Amino acid sequence: MTQLHDPAWRGFASDNYAGVHPAVMQALSDANGGHQVAYGDDVYTERLRVWVREAFGPDAEVFPVFNGTGANVVGLQAMMQRWEAVICATSAHVLVDEGGAPERTGGFKLHPVATPDGKLTPALVDEQAWGFGDQHRAQPAVVTITQSTELGTVYTPQEVRALADHVHGKGMRMHMDGARLSNAAAALGCAFREFTADAGVDVLSLGGTKIGAMGAEAVVVLNPAAVQGLPYLRKGAMQLASKMRFVSAQLLALFESDVWLQSARHANAMAARLREAVAAIPGVEVTRAVDANAVFAVLPAEVTARLQQQFRFYTWNEMTGEVRWMASWDTTEDDIDAFAAAVAREMGAVVAR
Amino acid sequence: MTQLHDPAWRGFASDNYAGVHPAVMQALSDANGGHQVAYGDDVYTERLRVWVREAFGPDAEVFPVFNGTGANVVGLQAMMQRWEAVICATSAHVLVDEGGAPERTGGFKLHPVATPDGKLTPALVDEQAWGFGDQHRAQPAVVTITQSTELGTVYTPQEVRALADHVHGKGMRMHMDGARLSNAAAALGCAFREFTADAGVDVLSLGGTKIGAMGAEAVVVLNPAAVQGLPYLRKGAMQLASKMRFVSAQLLALFESDVWLQSARHANAMAARLREAVAAIPGVEVTRAVDANAVFAVLPAEVTARLQQQFRFYTWNEMTGEVRWMASWDTTEDDIDAFAAAVAREMGAVVAR
Amino acid sequence: MTQLHDPAWRGFASDNYAGVHPAVMQALSDANGGHQVAYGDDVYTERLRVWVREAFGPDAEVFPVFNGTGANVVGLQAMMQRWEAVICATSAHVLVDEGGAPERTGGFKLHPVATPDGKLTPALVDEQAWGFGDQHRAQPAVVTITQSTELGTVYTPQEVRALADHVHGKGMRMHMDGARLSNAAAALGCAFREFTADAGVDVLSLGGTKIGAMGAEAVVVLNPAAVQGLPYLRKGAMQLASKMRFVSAQLLALFESDVWLQSARHANAMAARLREAVAAIPGVEVTRAVDANAVFAVLPAEVTARLQQQFRFYTWNEMTGEVRWMASWDTTEDDIDAFAAAVAREMGAVVAR
Amino acid sequence: MTQLHDPAWRGFASDNYAGVHPAVMQALSDANGGHQVAYGDDVYTERLRVWVREAFGPDAEVFPVFNGTGANVVGLQAMMQRWEAVICATSAHVLVDEGGAPERTGGFKLHPVATPDGKLTPALVDEQAWGFGDQHRAQPAVVTITQSTELGTVYTPQEVRALADHVHGKGMRMHMDGARLSNAAAALGCAFREFTADAGVDVLSLGGTKIGAMGAEAVVVLNPAAVQGLPYLRKGAMQLASKMRFVSAQLLALFESDVWLQSARHANAMAARLREAVAAIPGVEVTRAVDANAVFAVLPAEVTARLQQQFRFYTWNEMTGEVRWMASWDTTEDDIDAFAAAVAREMGAVVAR
Repeated sequence: MTQLHDPAWRGFASDNYAGVHPAVMQALSDANGGHQVAYGDDVYTERLRVWVREAFGPDAEVFPVFNGTGANVVGLQAMMQRWEAVICATSAHVLVDEGGAPERTGGFKLHPVATPDGKLTPALVDEQAWGFGDQHRAQPAVVTITQSTELGTVYTPQEVRALADHVHGKGMRMHMDGARLSNAAAALGCAFREFTADAGVDVLSLGGTKIGAMGAEAVVVLNPAAVQGLPYLRKGAMQLASKMRFVSAQLLALFESDVWLQSARHANAMAARLREAVAAIPGVEVTRAVDANAVFAVLPAEVTARLQQQFRFYTWNEMTGEVRWMASWDTTEDDIDAFAAAVAREMGAVVAR
Repeated sequence: MTQLHDPAWRGFASDNYAGVHPAVMQALSDANGGHQVAYGDDVYTERLRVWVREAFGPDAEVFPVFNGTGANVVGLQAMMQRWEAVICATSAHVLVDEGGAPERTGGFKLHPVATPDGKLTPALVDEQAWGFGDQHRAQPAVVTITQSTELGTVYTPQEVRALADHVHGKGMRMHMDGARLSNAAAALGCAFREFTADAGVDVLSLGGTKIGAMGAEAVVVLNPAAVQGLPYLRKGAMQLASKMRFVSAQLLALFESDVWLQSARHANAMAARLREAVAAIPGVEVTRAVDANAVFAVLPAEVTARLQQQFRFYTWNEMTGEVRWMASWDTTEDDIDAFAAAVAREMGAVVAR
Repeated sequence: MTQLHDPAWRGFASDNYAGVHPAVMQALSDANGGHQVAYGDDVYTERLRVWVREAFGPDAEVFPVFNGTGANVVGLQAMMQRWEAVICATSAHVLVDEGGAPERTGGFKLHPVATPDGKLTPALVDEQAWGFGDQHRAQPAVVTITQSTELGTVYTPQEVRALADHVHGKGMRMHMDGARLSNAAAALGCAFREFTADAGVDVLSLGGTKIGAMGAEAVVVLNPAAVQGLPYLRKGAMQLASKMRFVSAQLLALFESDVWLQSARHANAMAARLREAVAAIPGVEVTRAVDANAVFAVLPAEVTARLQQQFRFYTWNEMTGEVRWMASWDTTEDDIDAFAAAVAREMGAVVAR
Repeated sequence: MTQLHDPAWRGFASDNYAGVHPAVMQALSDANGGHQVAYGDDVYTERLRVWVREAFGPDAEVFPVFNGTGANVVGLQAMMQRWEAVICATSAHVLVDEGGAPERTGGFKLHPVATPDGKLTPALVDEQAWGFGDQHRAQPAVVTITQSTELGTVYTPQEVRALADHVHGKGMRMHMDGARLSNAAAALGCAFREFTADAGVDVLSLGGTKIGAMGAEAVVVLNPAAVQGLPYLRKGAMQLASKMRFVSAQLLALFESDVWLQSARHANAMAARLREAVAAIPGVEVTRAVDANAVFAVLPAEVTARLQQQFRFYTWNEMTGEVRWMASWDTTEDDIDAFAAAVAREMGAVVAR
C-alpha cells in the first residue's frame, strides 16, 4: 500500500481530521521491536506513570485507553456506584456525542443542565444537585466539566476550584473531560496541574488524539480515593490495549516534551487569527468567546452552503445557522487566510445584493 | 523520548508481546499528513472496504475496531436481540478472557459447552441449543467458534461448514472469533473465505494485532442479513476510532499484500519447530495438536518455575502443570532453539535425579 | 397478624397511599383456590386478553407487570433497538422518578425536553428529534407522553393524534405512560381507545395500582408491529409474575366493570373540590390546570410546614414553594373540606399579620 | 368478575401453580383500608423488619420485592462491584431460569460449576474461584447456593457452614437463594437462622410465593457489611412496590405464625408420600434424594406422554426422560394417591408387554 490521499488538503471540521505529529510517529517507531509485556506491564507505560506523577502529583495514576468516549465512560464509572449519576452541561460531549455509551455501556444516568457558554457554575450544578437519599432519584454523585468546553470556552483555575469546592461540599466528586486539555492549558498559560489536581479535580480524561496522537487518551486519577476498580472497569469497557506500549509512547511523545504546548499554542493562535479575520467581515457574527481552538459564527445559510462546497466544516445549529470552525495543530496561516478570504468573498456576494 | 527497551528480547508468553511489522509501520507513515474525514469516511477505510469485498465476497462489510474483545462484543451484539444468547466453548476467549465485557457491556448471556479440544461440534452445540420459545431461557441465537482456537487447534473448512449448517438449521447464526485467523488460514493453506464466508460464517472478528498490527481488528459482516445497527453499536461500545485511517491502514498493510501469510506461516513453523524439539525431551508431554502457533505441554512444576525465570510464558492450568508457549511473527529459529535447549537442560537436571 | 393501622387516616401525598378497592379484593379471592398454570397461561390472564381486544381493538396485546416503572421500561425496550433513545418531557416519571431504571436496567437514553405544562407538542418534540442516521447520536426512536401528566394536565384526543402523526411522520413510535389513564379518561369523558389506539399510540402503560389495585399494571401493545420480544424482555426485566392470575384478576376487576370510571371520576371530583376551596383562600395560588386528580399550589413555606404536621403531602419544588395535593379513589368530601379548612386557617394566621 | 376456574384442579408442575394460603388472604384484607405511606414506610413493612431481626438477628435487614428473580438479582448486585461475578451450580435458577436477567439487567457474569446433586462444595467452588486480581477475569466475589436446591436436595447447616467458611476464607461472600427456604427448614427441623445467619450466609432471598403467598419475596441482609446501596438497587431493578404494605403483610402472614412451617411440612410430606408410592412401581426409577418437596424420576417417554394428558408436570431432561413432580402446600393425600395410581396403571401397561 502506498499513500492514497492528498496530504496537502486540510479543513476546519475537526481537530480529529488532522494526522499524527512527527514526534509521535518517531516515538511509535522507537517503541517498536522485540517483545514487551502486554496490557500495560511494559516500560513505556511505566515511564508514562512516572510522567503523570511528575505532572499531576505523587498520587496520580494513569490508565491509557483508546479514545475519548472510552476515557470518559471508564473514568466516570470508576467514580460511581451503579445507582449514581453524573451532572453535566447540555453541551457536554458525554451527553450529546457518545451515542448513548454512558447510559448503555456505562449504565449510568446523566442529569443535564443548560448553560450559556458550556461552563457549569455552582448555581447551575445546584439545578440538578438534589434528591440525595431519595431512592427514586439516580443519586447525583459526580459533576463533569469539559476543558476546553465544546463551545470553545475555557475555565480559569479559579472557576474550577470554586466549582470543585462546591461539588465536594455536597459530597460529590469532580471529573474533567480534557479531550482538549492542551488547548486549555496553552490558553491559560498554566501547567496542567494548576487547573486539575491543584484545583480539586478528582479524575481527568487526558486527551492526546486531538493534539497530534494517532489514537491515545488516558484516564488520569488525581484523587485515588475517588475511584474503585479501574483496571477491571477498563477491561470490561473494552478499552484495554494489548500492545499498550504503543498507546503510552504516543502520550509520552506529546507530554514529556513540549510538543503538546507548541501544538496547542499554534492551534489556538490559528483560531484567534481566524476569529480576527472573520469578525471584520460585514454580516459575520462571531458568537462565542474564542478561548481555545474553536470559532463559532453565524452566517447566512446560503453562504455556509457555498463555503462547504470548498471547505469542510460543520453546521453546529441548523436553526440559528451557527457554524463551527476548528483549528488543528497542523493548520497553517495560509489555510486561515485562504479560508477567511473565501468567507469574505461569499459574504460580499450576499451583502452586495 | 528515545527507545527505552531492549528490542532483542523476546519470549513465548503471547503473540501480543510482539511489536509491529515493518510493513505496518510504513503504512502508518504513508497514511499520515494532511486531513482525512474522521470516523471512517477516509480513503484508507474505503480501500479496506474494497479489499473486504474482494476477499470475502461482494456483500461483505467491514467495521474496524480497536481490539479483539471489542470486535467480538460488537459483532455478537449486532447479531442478537437483547434477549438472545451465545453458545460458546468453555475455553472461548469471549467467555474466559474478556473480563465480563460480553455480559456487562454487551448485555448478553453466554451458554458454555465443554469441549475436548476447544472445538465445537453439532452435538456439542446441542447441549445448549434448546429452550427455543421459552421465555425463561435466554434464547440461544448465535454460536461462536474461535479459529484458530484458544487451544491451538484449527477447524477445517468442512468442520466449519457442518457446524454452520447445523446452526442455521436451528435458526441460529454463526460467528467466528478470528483473532488468529491468519494462523488458521496459513495452517489450512486456504484463502480466508474458504472457511468463513463460503463455509457459512455470518460474522467474523478479523484479527490484525496478533499477526503484526499495532492495534487493529475488525468486525467483518459476511451475511448482512444477520446483523443490525452495527455503526451505532460500534459507537455505543466505544470502539469507533476518530482517526480511523490509521486503523484501516494497518489492516491494509497486512491483508492487501501477503504480509499476513508470511507472518502466519512463520509463526506456525516456529511453533512446529518448538513442538518437535520439546517432544523429543524425556519427561515433556505435548498435550494438544499444534495446528497453528501455540504449543501446550505438561512439565514438572519446578522446571516450569526455573524456565520462567529465564523466559516469559504462562502456566495454562495450575492443577495439571500444563503450560502454553506461543510463537509470534517475529520469533526466530534461534529463539526456539535456545528455548528448547533450556527446556532440555532443566528437564535433564530433573530426570537425572 | 391483625390490622396494625388506622384505616380512617388518609392524606394527600399520593394516590399510592390509598388501599385496594373492595371489588379488587373480591376478585383476588375469587381467583384463589386450586391450581392455575403459572406465568400467564391461566384463565384470568386469558380473560384479560379478551378485554384488552374489546377495549383497544382486535390486535391489542397485554402483558401484566408489577409496577409502573416496570411497565414503562419493558414497553419502551420492546419498541427500541439497543442504540435508540426516547424523547420525553423533563417532568416525565420515566426521567425523574425511576431511579435510573431506564438507563441502567433498560439500557436506553432519554432525550428530555422542557415543557410549560408537562405536555409535549410537535414543536417541542422537534427540539430533540434530530440526528437521524448520525452514529454519534443515540437515535431518537420513541416519544413517550404521560396521560394524565405528572403536572395534573390531560392531553385531548386531538392533541395525542397530532403528536402521534408528527412522531410517525418522522419514523418514530409513540408511547403513553398511563399510570393515571383512568383519571384522564374520566376527565375527557372518553373511552380509553379514543385517545390511545385510535389516536395513534403504539404502546401503552396501563395503570391499575393508583386507581384501586393492590399492585397491577400492564404493557398494552396497540400496534404489534411496533414491538419485538416482549415476553422475553418482561422476564429479563424481572417483571414476570409466577402467580399471574392474581395480577390479571386485579386489572379485570377494575376494567371489565366501571370500577375504574367511578373511582377516577370520584378522585377527579375531589381534586376539583379542593381546587375550588383553596383558590378562594387569599394568598394561595393554584399554579396549574386541574384536569385530573392533582392540585398544585404555591403557599408560604411556613404554612406548608405547619400543614405538613397535620396532613401528609409533598413539596413539589423547594425553590418556588409549590406543593402537590393528590386526590385518590378513596378521598372523601370530608377529607377535602377538613383540609381546605386547615389551609384557610393557617393562611389566615399568616395573612392576618 | 366471578370465579372463572375450577378450584378443585391441581397438578404437579410447580408450587407456583398453587394459590394463596387463607391466612395470607386474610392478612391482605386486614392491611387494607385508609392510607399508608408508600414505598416501604408503612407499619406492615416496619413490623416485618421487627420479625426479621427476631428471626435472623439484630443486624438483619429486609427489602421486600415482587418475585424470586428480583430477589436474587437485587441481592446479588448489592453484594458486588460492577466487575465482580457469581459462582453458582449449573442447575441454579439464577443461571438457567431467569431469562438472562442476571447478565442483562444485573450486569454481572455467572461462573457455573457442574454438581452431582445441585449442591456446591468447597472443592466445587474452587473450580471457579481463581484469577483473583487478574484484570481479564470477571472477579469471583460471591458464591450463591439454593436451599432447597433445584434438584430437591437440602444443605445441612454443617454443609452451609463449611462452604461459607471456605468462601469467606477466599475473600468472597455467601448468598442463598431461598425460594423454597421453608421447605428446607421443615426438612431440617431447624429455625431459618441455623442454616443462614448462623451458618455464615451474608444475604438471603427469602421466598414467600411458593409456600402460599400471592407474590412476595424479600432480600434479607444478614451481614450488612456485605452489601451496598440496596434501596437504590431495588428501585433501579424495578422491584420497589408502591403499596408495599401488601407485600409485607403477605410475608408477615406466613412467617410471624407457623403458616410457613405447616405448609412446608405438608408439602414435603406429600412429596415423600409420592416418592414412596412410585418407587414401588416396577420400571420407575426415583433419581434423586427427596429431601424437600420435589420428586425426580425416570419414566419411559410414552408413559410420561400419557400421564401428561391427565396431569400437569414437566419433563426435566428430554434426553434422559427424567421428570419432575412438585408437591405444594395445597396438595392433598388424595391428589398423591390418584397420581401414583395413574403412574402404576400406565407403567403396568408398558411392563406387561
